[in-house]
Amino acid sequence: MAGPASLIGLDWGTTSLRAYRIANDGSVQERREGPLGILAITDGDFAGALARTIGDWLRAEPGLPVLASGMIGSRQGWHEAPYAPCPAGAADLSDRLVTVDGPDESVYLAPGLSTREPGTGVPDVMRGEETQILGALEALPDADLFVLPGTHSKWATVEGGRITDFRTWMTGEVFDVLRRHSILGRLMEGDGQDEEAFLDGVDRGAAEAAGVLHAIFAARTFGLMGDLPGTALAPYLSGVLIGAEIAGARAWSGGRKPVVIASGRLTDAYLQAMARLGMAGEAAAPDAVVRGLFGLARAAGLLERDHG
Amino acid sequence: MAGPASLIGLDWGTTSLRAYRIANDGSVQERREGPLGILAITDGDFAGALARTIGDWLRAEPGLPVLASGMIGSRQGWHEAPYAPCPAGAADLSDRLVTVDGPDESVYLAPGLSTREPGTGVPDVMRGEETQILGALEALPDADLFVLPGTHSKWATVEGGRITDFRTWMTGEVFDVLRRHSILGRLMEGDGQDEEAFLDGVDRGAAEAAGVLHAIFAARTFGLMGDLPGTALAPYLSGVLIGAEIAGARAWSGGRKPVVIASGRLTDAYLQAMARLGMAGEAAAPDAVVRGLFGLARAAGLLERDHG
Repeated sequence: MAGPASLIGLDWGTTSLRAYRIANDGSVQERREGPLGILAITDGDFAGALARTIGDWLRAEPGLPVLASGMIGSRQGWHEAPYAPCPAGAADLSDRLVTVDGPDESVYLAPGLSTREPGTGVPDVMRGEETQILGALEALPDADLFVLPGTHSKWATVEGGRITDFRTWMTGEVFDVLRRHSILGRLMEGDGQDEEAFLDGVDRGAAEAAGVLHAIFAARTFGLMGDLPGTALAPYLSGVLIGAEIAGARAWSGGRKPVVIASGRLTDAYLQAMARLGMAGEAAAPDAVVRGLFGLARAAGLLERDHG
Repeated sequence: MAGPASLIGLDWGTTSLRAYRIANDGSVQERREGPLGILAITDGDFAGALARTIGDWLRAEPGLPVLASGMIGSRQGWHEAPYAPCPAGAADLSDRLVTVDGPDESVYLAPGLSTREPGTGVPDVMRGEETQILGALEALPDADLFVLPGTHSKWATVEGGRITDFRTWMTGEVFDVLRRHSILGRLMEGDGQDEEAFLDGVDRGAAEAAGVLHAIFAARTFGLMGDLPGTALAPYLSGVLIGAEIAGARAWSGGRKPVVIASGRLTDAYLQAMARLGMAGEAAAPDAVVRGLFGLARAAGLLERDHG
């Protein structure tokens, strides 16, 4: 544990808890990660889970502010931090922090973000991604479109330091349930990659006028007919779904250049898919969530109050 | 058991076996239905399953031809009856019947149908639906587009008594896996209908330029935000998927008037959804599969040979 910290930042989601000891220049001094996502904490003892994960950090530096973002602030989490409406930047979010009693001291929970589609009023929501977007924006202040691929992919537009609007695509979860629970999984073999099958899928998912509910069926018929080996079927299906997402998101976001915030492997897949569809994208720097949490703490006056 | 029969027809699918004693005018003399679909017959004893279901019919009229269509002719069924390529009518299918040894005598298995998308060569397949389409066509000889909604919805074009092409949409299975295995099911309550929510979903599924992977997420956010009660979320999701299917199928089939072949409730839902989208459709008469099996048996000379 090198030197005094200025903030403990928590990226606390559905399946995992990532904790960061953050120095007063925003750099990471120490990090921990465990499977203590909110779904794993069935007794509601979030303070206990936090004490088990970083109790030594808290005891070593009493009074250090603790700020968490992600599903921990949802109705199924520690306490609900109601959604902030778009447009919203760090100042808007920091106005809406919710405080809960931690193991030793208070823990601040960041709100999620909500939007409604103009005209139809259809709502959309995110929790945790807003913090990553604002963090990634610090390193790329001119970026105006961010993509967070995954279980529920989010595409968000940004102007003047605030998230102006966003949409969700259920790409990752649809892939997962189709693979594990539908007939499409029956002919699939292995967990390998197959770049050619993936990119063929991207083409098809983006171009198929009959829609994705039709396009995905080829992940069965290619196998039945022997056109693709079993090992190529999962990459192909993944491509179809990601291609459909990118085409839909391009229709929504209208020609902006997307910045991808994800793990290295997922970032590569999305950048490859975008390139295949003639769309230039770039990768965000790592640890966007750390920069986002630090910026949020600064906007909320937590850094000054405790260590100013 | 009234009068001598001319054919025993079997509609033998994944989850059920439907058997029909058919008179020489094509009418149904007797029918039986059981849960002996091919997935339920794990020991491969299809002859035994048939004997348990209609052994008395077979013993009462030895020599009566038995003709089966559906997944029973797939690789996972009794014996593979290879796909016939489009275009195909009753004569083309009857040329490709496959014979297996039944409990007392031979059983004829109808082939499925295959097609490939022009340009891309992407394959599509059906098994059983081709028999229903040809049966429905007998009552509506001028129809040129048939829809068989369900787990895997099929849309097929017809010209000159032959099925010229078709496409599959995985609408029913996607609904099922999303409801049972994805986060969308969490807020859903009950199995009731909600016509308004269903038709709102149809509008959205058909119109959403961002695509169906985005549109389905509203089945969660409407619940989170309290815009829709839990009982409306499943009908809404069903509407989104059916709306997306119909819009995609309309793009593919180009303005033909669809004939819907399904149970009463599913037929009503599709006709309602089509009407909402400004598309005129009509319902096929019941027992299309019986007329299809009878026509196939006639084309194969089975009726003449045994009872001519």
